[in-house]
Amino acid sequence: MFIIDKIAFLGPEGTFTHEAASKITNNLISYCSIPAVMESIQSNKHLKGIVPIENSIEGPVGITLDSLIHKFDLKINGEIILPINHHLLGKSADNLLTITDVYSHPQALAQCQSFINDNKFRTHHALSTASAAKNILTMDNSGAIGTSKAAELYDLEIIKSNIQDADNNQTRFIILAKNDHEITGFDKTSIAFSIFEDYPGQLYNILGIFAKNNINLTKIESRPSKEGLGKYVFFIDFLGHRNNKNIKKILYEINNKTPFTKVLGSYPINKY
Amino acid sequence: MFIIDKIAFLGPEGTFTHEAASKITNNLISYCSIPAVMESIQSNKHLKGIVPIENSIEGPVGITLDSLIHKFDLKINGEIILPINHHLLGKSADNLLTITDVYSHPQALAQCQSFINDNKFRTHHALSTASAAKNILTMDNSGAIGTSKAAELYDLEIIKSNIQDADNNQTRFIILAKNDHEITGFDKTSIAFSIFEDYPGQLYNILGIFAKNNINLTKIESRPSKEGLGKYVFFIDFLGHRNNKNIKKILYEINNKTPFTKVLGSYPINKY
Repeated sequence: MFIIDKIAFLGPEGTFTHEAASKITNNLISYCSIPAVMESIQSNKHLKGIVPIENSIEGPVGITLDSLIHKFDLKINGEIILPINHHLLGKSADNLLTITDVYSHPQALAQCQSFINDNKFRTHHALSTASAAKNILTMDNSGAIGTSKAAELYDLEIIKSNIQDADNNQTRFIILAKNDHEITGFDKTSIAFSIFEDYPGQLYNILGIFAKNNINLTKIESRPSKEGLGKYVFFIDFLGHRNNKNIKKILYEINNKTPFTKVLGSYPINKY
Repeated sequence: MFIIDKIAFLGPEGTFTHEAASKITNNLISYCSIPAVMESIQSNKHLKGIVPIENSIEGPVGITLDSLIHKFDLKINGEIILPINHHLLGKSADNLLTITDVYSHPQALAQCQSFINDNKFRTHHALSTASAAKNILTMDNSGAIGTSKAAELYDLEIIKSNIQDADNNQTRFIILAKNDHEITGFDKTSIAFSIFEDYPGQLYNILGIFAKNNINLTKIESRPSKEGLGKYVFFIDFLGHRNNKNIKKILYEINNKTPFTKVLGSYPINKY
């Protein structure tokens, strides 16, 4: 297989993005940052790439939204929604009683606070859940909070599974490509737009276009437009494909009523 | 003066929050996290505290919004808007030609990319702009990207000022207290609300209440409600005080139309 067939993903190996990407293929190649994944598609190194876009607890991944608007001309070709289950990983000789110190990314530590407190673990920051798993290989009485993928990769045991505080912790990943997906009949469209500053109630009018056409929004996010406080780009996801007749009409109307509209792509809803 | 008179702020000393807090008083005390600042007010250790809430480039400070909704019952009593000017700090013996390595918080390094590239500096991550300034005290040929406050604190020189890429980089800080501010005639109100999931167009209807009353929104942000993807809490700022007659009517209407509404406070617009 050629390198262009490999799917680029936000590395390192053993993180949740790796776990999400593995649902599609094992022919993967990791990049060190979200813009680096996007650049590899823009420059035709690879046909597709996978990056996180939002988490149900932490919110949007700002750099993904900002890069799609300000830096790259890529389309969303698909989405993968992954439940985020954190596990306590350790070496085979260890168990819950021998472990005193726990390593992980600060966000993962924060999401397992009750389990950490109950077991009176000392916590230490690592650059990623995967590097935490690698760290503990040479340490005594130490565990890492990470993915089952990381356990596989570094030959660690899952000492305790599903140790996260919240049950509804999910991350949504997007598959990026030069083109979006053809109609499947069960599709979603993502757009971004800005509004005229001096026109009060303009966001209200845009949302009214969807309400009047009975189109359900599945997401609305605001991001700073980088032009000063109080100036925003809005990200909206809604049901339907941009090639559906009624959606075409809506997009035409929004484009006419805003200074900037960008269709980020139409793609099948949570297919993987 | 008693300790309760001290204003709590997100430390360490020498960061932008310190710079913002210094606009009000020098009777300050630093805390190591945003929830720790809030806890110190909730538990009556201090009357007021200052934390960042949003940046014009990076977006909202998620932990501030989430803590106000889910953890603490505090009010916004005021706001401070600070232009974010990054400076290259160094020891008095150094200059642009002797410096080869630059330390700072990853966000500050990212915001000074062009200047760093032009000078071919090697970059190194630090936990905060203030700790970067402290780091370089014992290092050769090294500079830190930080505030003028940090230069003062660690007796460093400003080797080059205003090295940030964007001119419109501003951070908005809020002053928190047990109560919000009385009417000044030039006020803003911050609220948060959620919407019923099964009722399409509900955000549209809420925004309509403002549009019909000609009330200008100065901010709208969405944050995950932590109940799953696609479920949000909305944060809206608008002109007027919650004790104004027309604003009272609007708040009553919103409260009746949503499952959850919280008035975060009314306070004078950008007084400092």
